[in-house]
Amino acid sequence: MDAQHQLLQRLQKPSDRKIVLVVADGLGGLPQIPDGPTELEAAATPHLDLLAAGGVCGLHWPVLPGITAGSGPGHLALFGYDPLVYEIGRGVLSALGVAFDLHSGDVAARGNFCTLDDRGRVTDRRAGRIATAEAARLVEKLRRIELPDARLFLEPVREHRFVLVLRGERLDPGVGDTDPQQTGIEPHAPKPLRSDARTTARLVERFLGQAHELLSEERPANGVLLRGFSQRPDWPTLGELHGVRACALPTYPMYRGLARLLGMEVGVDSDADLTGQITALEENWERFDFFFLHHKEPDSRGEDGNFVSKVSAIERLDGAMPRIQALQPDVLLVTGDHSTPSRLRSHSWHPVPVLLASRTARPDTAQRFGESACRAGGLGLLPGKQLMALALAHAERLEKFGA
Amino acid sequence: MDAQHQLLQRLQKPSDRKIVLVVADGLGGLPQIPDGPTELEAAATPHLDLLAAGGVCGLHWPVLPGITAGSGPGHLALFGYDPLVYEIGRGVLSALGVAFDLHSGDVAARGNFCTLDDRGRVTDRRAGRIATAEAARLVEKLRRIELPDARLFLEPVREHRFVLVLRGERLDPGVGDTDPQQTGIEPHAPKPLRSDARTTARLVERFLGQAHELLSEERPANGVLLRGFSQRPDWPTLGELHGVRACALPTYPMYRGLARLLGMEVGVDSDADLTGQITALEENWERFDFFFLHHKEPDSRGEDGNFVSKVSAIERLDGAMPRIQALQPDVLLVTGDHSTPSRLRSHSWHPVPVLLASRTARPDTAQRFGESACRAGGLGLLPGKQLMALALAHAERLEKFGA
Repeated sequence: MDAQHQLLQRLQKPSDRKIVLVVADGLGGLPQIPDGPTELEAAATPHLDLLAAGGVCGLHWPVLPGITAGSGPGHLALFGYDPLVYEIGRGVLSALGVAFDLHSGDVAARGNFCTLDDRGRVTDRRAGRIATAEAARLVEKLRRIELPDARLFLEPVREHRFVLVLRGERLDPGVGDTDPQQTGIEPHAPKPLRSDARTTARLVERFLGQAHELLSEERPANGVLLRGFSQRPDWPTLGELHGVRACALPTYPMYRGLARLLGMEVGVDSDADLTGQITALEENWERFDFFFLHHKEPDSRGEDGNFVSKVSAIERLDGAMPRIQALQPDVLLVTGDHSTPSRLRSHSWHPVPVLLASRTARPDTAQRFGESACRAGGLGLLPGKQLMALALAHAERLEKFGA
Repeated sequence: MDAQHQLLQRLQKPSDRKIVLVVADGLGGLPQIPDGPTELEAAATPHLDLLAAGGVCGLHWPVLPGITAGSGPGHLALFGYDPLVYEIGRGVLSALGVAFDLHSGDVAARGNFCTLDDRGRVTDRRAGRIATAEAARLVEKLRRIELPDARLFLEPVREHRFVLVLRGERLDPGVGDTDPQQTGIEPHAPKPLRSDARTTARLVERFLGQAHELLSEERPANGVLLRGFSQRPDWPTLGELHGVRACALPTYPMYRGLARLLGMEVGVDSDADLTGQITALEENWERFDFFFLHHKEPDSRGEDGNFVSKVSAIERLDGAMPRIQALQPDVLLVTGDHSTPSRLRSHSWHPVPVLLASRTARPDTAQRFGESACRAGGLGLLPGKQLMALALAHAERLEKFGA
């Protein structure tokens, strides 16, 4: 356990004060035109602005200045896990993303369908980004493969992507990627990175041999590439670290899987909309004292490059605030897991606005919720992984350190 | 020695430039009413405001964002000691607090008088918070206890609290707390946490046996609980780390003890008032080049929950500034060891205002000394443990790092 976790665990105070963490995925942005507002600044957010005016604001670096966080690391930081210490393998993250029930001991890998030429060299690492349905058909075909002493699970993801999971005795994820990350050469053989991983590497080799046989007549997807072999990590839960009973309200599989991995109970159906998520928050209110409400849309619209849609997505979250506030949480923390400026059509490293509303907040000069206002806020610029301690402190759930 | 200390020690430059560190204990606060000023902002502080206008301001996190510092960790940070690395045990801190002359090798523990029922279970961990005089009588009684091969010292503290010190050969503080931290169960036996601590644990057991016999007819204090077994740490002194001759001017025992622990000379009587402390500063001016002036009152009034009294306590410090300034220190650093908002009646995690006045300060926009003004100051938000390096730098007492 790292030093921050030891400290927080040691300072835990029994309490039923309630914390709501609202994550607007990809919240931070960039102006569309010079001197223009960001998406958040362009949005009409009267409720968030009022909260910002009465609370304390700031900006957080999800990982470190200059580092663009994926959704996994971005969320881990928000839950108080140093994303550089707690790393989730790509295989596991992909399995969580399709709601695969990963057992401890399973080895998961991220798979790509690819195109190979007649000499076995990769000509397209993504097989022309084949349609999801086509990939699903191929996955079905590969499910015929049988391996000695191990069960094989395959799940399609999106386009050319799939997940491979091996289940058996004493499997070891220390297997090198077969994806060469370039074209014009053959895929790598699955190399054991340590002696304990030899059996697993041999299983992967057998899988690949049979897969390439089964796919030999297919075009363009006549090969597969694997990377990110990994196992479900055994990390301390949010309850263990922070003494909270945590309820997660995300609808996307990856976030549901991540929440379960950290010992949170998922309290909402995966097909709920934002209104349904808030209803689930209300229904679970009495049973828990930490709530993670996830609003995916700003990130998706940012990745679409659609400034106006991202603005609307943020405004929809603003419209949901009154019902959250009506529950009177002791601490209401609103932020994002990373920035997704629509101008860049991707995640970015820019610091993310933070708003913390609580009876114990020291008011600052931020009168609205936006990048510029937050820059002058009382929390300054701080690492994302430190926000959880602040939320616990404002909920008066932490003892004093030293006499 | 940790990395920060190694760096500072390496960059030491012989110098007679003088630094005055004024610690207004519990300085940071919260508004009493929404949109109102904090205690510091409500106080009329013309001298501090002028210093802030000409100097550079900021806010510091005593330990980490969200962590509420005790006075020990808060002060260690201000002296440049990482409070997460340099931890003082509760027993040692209690001994320092009653000005007990702790030798190296002594084992100290914090004691509580408690109430036990007829089956030996704790019914009140504080024996109804008996009066200090009553505890002193009981301590006197317990002083009759004799231990083989070890001397026993007992000192009353306040109400139900006392300090126990064992002095002997090869004592080891690795003894578990006997305080079960809850009622309804028996106190724990004093368990050795490592084999070297077996003798010490046996001594503690004998002490407890005799103590409970001597207290058996007493009510409500018929038992004792011990915790925080610890030894005086052997840390580098301020002189070793920073190359300063340090003079401490606190009147409260804990701070006097802590200053001595760090190799400072205590230059004021314990019954001095603020005026007396300033006189002591003047009298010691020529012999030292680092001065720690401690003003306890803002913290005490904050813990009383008395906003107006805390304001007055801060104003009294402001009134003392001209005499300090008349000495023309090269660096004058004014801050607190932590926040003590009167609204919370306790220490808190909120960042603490900092003011650094020096010929080499780069002026900023802060025109007065207060939480909001400091937030916009040139030092930003920084860890408390980094202030000492800044003070040394502004006193031009640090060499360049690298060529």
